[in-house]
Amino acid sequence: MNEDRFERGMNALREVDPYVADNIQETLKDLFPAMAKVTIEFVYGDVMSRDGLDLRTRELLNVAMLGAMGTVPEQLEMHIKGALNTGSTQAQILEVILQIAVYAGFPAAFNALGSARKVFELHSE
Amino acid sequence: MNEDRFERGMNALREVDPYVADNIQETLKDLFPAMAKVTIEFVYGDVMSRDGLDLRTRELLNVAMLGAMGTVPEQLEMHIKGALNTGSTQAQILEVILQIAVYAGFPAAFNALGSARKVFELHSE
Amino acid sequence: MNEDRFERGMNALREVDPYVADNIQETLKDLFPAMAKVTIEFVYGDVMSRDGLDLRTRELLNVAMLGAMGTVPEQLEMHIKGALNTGSTQAQILEVILQIAVYAGFPAAFNALGSARKVFELHSE
Amino acid sequence: MNEDRFERGMNALREVDPYVADNIQETLKDLFPAMAKVTIEFVYGDVMSRDGLDLRTRELLNVAMLGAMGTVPEQLEMHIKGALNTGSTQAQILEVILQIAVYAGFPAAFNALGSARKVFELHSE
Amino acid sequence: MNEDRFERGMNALREVDPYVADNIQETLKDLFPAMAKVTIEFVYGDVMSRDGLDLRTRELLNVAMLGAMGTVPEQLEMHIKGALNTGSTQAQILEVILQIAVYAGFPAAFNALGSARKVFELHSE
Amino acid sequence: MNEDRFERGMNALREVDPYVADNIQETLKDLFPAMAKVTIEFVYGDVMSRDGLDLRTRELLNVAMLGAMGTVPEQLEMHIKGALNTGSTQAQILEVILQIAVYAGFPAAFNALGSARKVFELHSE
Repeated sequence: MNEDRFERGMNALREVDPYVADNIQETLKDLFPAMAKVTIEFVYGDVMSRDGLDLRTRELLNVAMLGAMGTVPEQLEMHIKGALNTGSTQAQILEVILQIAVYAGFPAAFNALGSARKVFELHSE
Repeated sequence: MNEDRFERGMNALREVDPYVADNIQETLKDLFPAMAKVTIEFVYGDVMSRDGLDLRTRELLNVAMLGAMGTVPEQLEMHIKGALNTGSTQAQILEVILQIAVYAGFPAAFNALGSARKVFELHSE
Repeated sequence: MNEDRFERGMNALREVDPYVADNIQETLKDLFPAMAKVTIEFVYGDVMSRDGLDLRTRELLNVAMLGAMGTVPEQLEMHIKGALNTGSTQAQILEVILQIAVYAGFPAAFNALGSARKVFELHSE
Repeated sequence: MNEDRFERGMNALREVDPYVADNIQETLKDLFPAMAKVTIEFVYGDVMSRDGLDLRTRELLNVAMLGAMGTVPEQLEMHIKGALNTGSTQAQILEVILQIAVYAGFPAAFNALGSARKVFELHSE
Repeated sequence: MNEDRFERGMNALREVDPYVADNIQETLKDLFPAMAKVTIEFVYGDVMSRDGLDLRTRELLNVAMLGAMGTVPEQLEMHIKGALNTGSTQAQILEVILQIAVYAGFPAAFNALGSARKVFELHSE
Repeated sequence: MNEDRFERGMNALREVDPYVADNIQETLKDLFPAMAKVTIEFVYGDVMSRDGLDLRTRELLNVAMLGAMGTVPEQLEMHIKGALNTGSTQAQILEVILQIAVYAGFPAAFNALGSARKVFELHSE
């Protein structure tokens, strides 16, 4: 049922980024509410909350993917926060970034390092 | 010391893909031995064998990154094998692929699924 | 309701590519049935079948996006077929490909042209 | 003849973005006039003004391609404006963006949505 | 004049790849002659034959760009041949590929190395 | 020996960008010193300082690669400066950017042109 997908999605999104969870519907209410709906129900309700991989691992994977892609710095910052929020350490995130240097190039890794610095400064452990 | 970097790199590469570990130097001997050297010493000796993330997690990250990038199907197959060799299950790799659909698009995920199918068939559990 | 999403998705997928529609569940039954489910329900049921853009336009957009990305030749062929199946002409698809040359580079366009040639030969008007 | 290519190009560019059309030569006069010349003659004169696809469809394709590529936010904003200027509605542009989520990933779509929000606010219907 | 652009383009293309120069018009005659025309006139006539950088440097740049992008293996092979045809050595091309590893990641470099191996074998010095 | 790799790396980095050479260790001292170390030893010590291609050519290749990738504007600016610092002219860098338009699309080239404009203004010849 849709309500289940929605509830499950909001719960997962809340663990990743409580601020986004509390605001995504309001933020998109006038511009494009369908985008909030599929993000909650599909992204977080159908995929991110599946068993088989815990949310901590999934958020590390997101840091790796978005860092390697290099096109989405704001989303990368959100998922660096999400990685910290779901139990990864700053040191582990830096390991991911060094691995990005190998597999997607040093410039992508330096971009990701800039995003990490910003998040770590606001989020000091 | 270089020998240490080399040894440490060969050990990590052997865990990821024993076949590549045994053959990379011979394969590149005539064409470009420097490429084998930096792959062993830098990629596997300096980065993949660092503490802070275990090799199992690192190989899952590689599946996510290479699947999201979508440009390197042969390397993706190698790291799907590497993920299995370092202790991930087929089910966990499929979870990564579904997450690729969300963050890098369904076509990238279907490409990765094709690579997984090939590896799983040769590597039946 | 899920059944509606599924039905709506299968109907849209059937217009794009009847062969895929008839086989996607069987093909993924053993490997990863969840992937077939989200493709039908989310990709085709929630997105591709929405009002606001007709399926013909949506398939042209897919040719443009996948051609520009350049990473997914098999999916590009499927959507070139999909563009023909939903009412675009070969000439219109070639216009899209020339536009890809401008916005994503000539090599991406030559790749897409190779895909178009394959599809057009099998699908002669 | 070159004058034809130039004239045809300026006419197409004026429909897409009159401000750019009026300023591109002056803006690039000192830095790189050849870039203005090929943009007008080749991009707009040889390609964007061809028959076979109308400019409205071409601008929607540009929104899809640049949104999927995710690397060129300023150019994406220009072509979201171009899509509005050539007759697409805000609702149609949002449909393209949701489709980007499916084919190039949700982060690319959220980037494009940010660009659309900026353009729509300046360009209120 | 167009004839000049065409002649200049054919001359440059002939230096890069005489086989493509002799066949591109015939190959695209039925499918899309406009694509051959813009490739000769714009790509080779307006850009690749410009003063300011010699064709040897331009072809090395193409190897670097296409190798880094990783999406166009056939075009990469053509420009590895083009680099050899315009005076670069195999050793210089291998240096470019190692540099690709640093700036676009090792998997992209291994892809490019595979392309180079194919070309070098057919093109033995 | 590591000291050799480090020295050789610092020398090459100093030619490319003396400011970065003087500051990279301090900048990363608290956040991630390993990143500074591999950048100096591997990127500049093992790769950029190799014989076979001079640093001037290598920096032009970097402008081409990073411009084509389009994901790393700050790194692109650094290497446009690096190209000037190692002996290329502004006119040659503009030629590279026009070639990016052909091989990676006009939007990528316009991005790179914006980076070049910024660097040229600060670095007036």
